Amino acid sequence: VAELAGPEALVAAADGGDPRALARLISLVENGSPQLRSVMRLIAPRTGQARFLGLTGAPGVGKSTVTGALVRAYRDAGLRVAVLAVDPTSPFTGGALLGDRVRMQEHATDGGVFIRSMASRGHLGGLSRAAPQALRILDAAGFDVVMIETVGVGQAEVEIASLADTTMVIVAPGMGDSVQAAKAGILEIADVFVVNKSDRPGAQEATRDLRNMLAMSRYDEGAWKPPIVLASAMSGEGIDDLFIRLNDHASWLAESGEGERRRVARAREEITVLAVAQVRERLGALPGEAHLEDLAAQVASGKLDPYSAADQLISP
Amino acid sequence: VAELAGPEALVAAADGGDPRALARLISLVENGSPQLRSVMRLIAPRTGQARFLGLTGAPGVGKSTVTGALVRAYRDAGLRVAVLAVDPTSPFTGGALLGDRVRMQEHATDGGVFIRSMASRGHLGGLSRAAPQALRILDAAGFDVVMIETVGVGQAEVEIASLADTTMVIVAPGMGDSVQAAKAGILEIADVFVVNKSDRPGAQEATRDLRNMLAMSRYDEGAWKPPIVLASAMSGEGIDDLFIRLNDHASWLAESGEGERRRVARAREEITVLAVAQVRERLGALPGEAHLEDLAAQVASGKLDPYSAADQLISP
Repeated sequence: VAELAGPEALVAAADGGDPRALARLISLVENGSPQLRSVMRLIAPRTGQARFLGLTGAPGVGKSTVTGALVRAYRDAGLRVAVLAVDPTSPFTGGALLGDRVRMQEHATDGGVFIRSMASRGHLGGLSRAAPQALRILDAAGFDVVMIETVGVGQAEVEIASLADTTMVIVAPGMGDSVQAAKAGILEIADVFVVNKSDRPGAQEATRDLRNMLAMSRYDEGAWKPPIVLASAMSGEGIDDLFIRLNDHASWLAESGEGERRRVARAREEITVLAVAQVRERLGALPGEAHLEDLAAQVASGKLDPYSAADQLISP
Repeated sequence: VAELAGPEALVAAADGGDPRALARLISLVENGSPQLRSVMRLIAPRTGQARFLGLTGAPGVGKSTVTGALVRAYRDAGLRVAVLAVDPTSPFTGGALLGDRVRMQEHATDGGVFIRSMASRGHLGGLSRAAPQALRILDAAGFDVVMIETVGVGQAEVEIASLADTTMVIVAPGMGDSVQAAKAGILEIADVFVVNKSDRPGAQEATRDLRNMLAMSRYDEGAWKPPIVLASAMSGEGIDDLFIRLNDHASWLAESGEGERRRVARAREEITVLAVAQVRERLGALPGEAHLEDLAAQVASGKLDPYSAADQLISP
C-alpha cells in the first residue's frame, strides 16, 4: 500500500505510526521527489513537538551503543523514539542499512521505536536539504524524541549536529579523541560531552583534557556550560546521569529562549537552502563540476578573469 | 587623476606602481563597482605571479608587528611587498585606516611597499567576493609578496586566511591562545606556527602545547608538517628563521603540486561566489533579512512549510 499511496495517504498512515509509510516518506526525501512539496505542506501543522538530540564523535567511540542505551531509557520513560543515522561520506542506499536491521531486532515489535539510515547523495548540499526534511517527517509522525547520529567529526557532521536542540559529543579514552574533536571545532557545538567506555584506562585523563579545554572558554552569565558525563553505554553505567543532563538542557533551552532561537535558526537555514535550489532550477541546472574545474584552471593561469568564468558557468 | 580615470588608465597607472591608482582600484572593489568587470578582464593576464602569505591569530598576539618585521625582511631581500589588512567585524571605511597611515610612515617614501585596510560591508559574502579581488589587483600590480592579515580567529578569518598560499597562525604566551586557536579549527589551516613574544614567560609552554597537538595529527607521506617558529617580532629575533620556513613552504608548494592545487581551488571558489551573485541579480535582489526571519518563525511554529516559505522569499 505504502509503495503506491499518494502524499495524503502516506502522511495519514505515518501519523498513525505505520513504519512502512514512514520509510516511504523518507525515501521521497532521499530521492528529492516532487511529491515532497505536498508532503511538507500537509505535515507543517503537526511539526514542532519533538525534541531533537544530536550525537556525534569519531568512529569507534561507541555512538551507536550510546544511542541504543538512550533509546531504552526514553522507552522506559514512556516516550516514542526515532533514530536517524546519517553518514555524509556514503552514498544513499535507498533504504535501511544492514546495521539498522540488526539494531532494529531489539525493537522489532515495538511500534514506539523507528530507526533509519540516510547517506549523502554525493552532491554538495544533498544532506543539508534532506536531513532537515527527514527530521520534519519524524517530528510530524509524533515521535517525542528524534535522535540524529552522525559518523565522524568533520564539517558536515558539525552542520548536521547543528540541526539538533541538544548536541552530544561522544569521546572515548585514548586516540586523542578530545583533541581531534577540538580541532574540528566541535567543542563549540557540544551541549553535553559523553566520555564513553569509562571503564577503560584513560577515561579520567580524557575527562581532564575536556575539562581543561572547557576551563579556557568564557561563558556569559546564564549561558549553558556543557557538562561532562562519564558513561559505559555497553553496561548502561552513567546513562541515568546522561538522561538527567539531557533533561536539564531541555529545561535550559525552554527557560532561556535559546530553544526557540535554535528552532527559528534551523527553519531559516532550511528556507535558504530551498530558495537557492529553486533559483538554480529556474535557470536550469548549473553545469557539472568538470566545467567549473576547467574554468578555475583558466582563471588560475590568468587566461580568463573570474567574471567571464562566472558568465560561462551560468550561461554555457 | 586617479579619481577620474577609467579602468584602462587606472590599471596602467597601478601597474606602474602608482599608490593612488592602486587605492582607487581597491575602493572599486569595496564598493562593488560595475567597473570591476573591465578591471578584472584587463588585469587577468598579469596575475598569478605573487606569493600570498596569510597571517591570523587572536587580537593581541602581535600580528601587525610580525607583518612589519616580514615586510622589512622581504624589502631587504629586494622584493616588493603589499599588505592587505582585513577585519571581518568592522564596516568598510572607504579608505585607509589611521593604523595604516601610522604603519605606512616607515615606508612612506618606499614605492616597494603598499599597505591597505579592508573591512566588511556588513553583509554576508561581502568579503568573500571583495578580498580575492583586492588580492588579484595587488598581484597584477607586480608585488612579489602580498600579505593578508586578519583580525581574530573565527570562521571568517579562517576563510580569508585560506586565500593564501602559505598561512601563518600567530600565538603568544598566556591567554590559552593555542587552545582557542585549536577550537576555531585553525590548526588545520596553519602552514607555519609563530609563537610571538618569545621573550615572555610561557613561550616554551605555548610551544609545547602546540607541539603536543600537532603530535596527535597524522600526516601522509610527503605532506607538509607545520613548523613552529619562536619569534620576538618587536626585537626582530626569530624573523630570519621565519623567513627561511616560509621559503621552505614555498618550495614544497611548488614541488608537491599543492601550490597549483590551492590556486585552482581559490579560483573555483571565486567563480562560484560571482556566479551565485549573478544568479541572484538576474532574479532581482532577494528580500531582506527581516522577511526571512519572519518566514523562519512561521516555519518553526508550523504555520508554514519550508517550500512555501522559499517561494515567498524569492517571489515576494
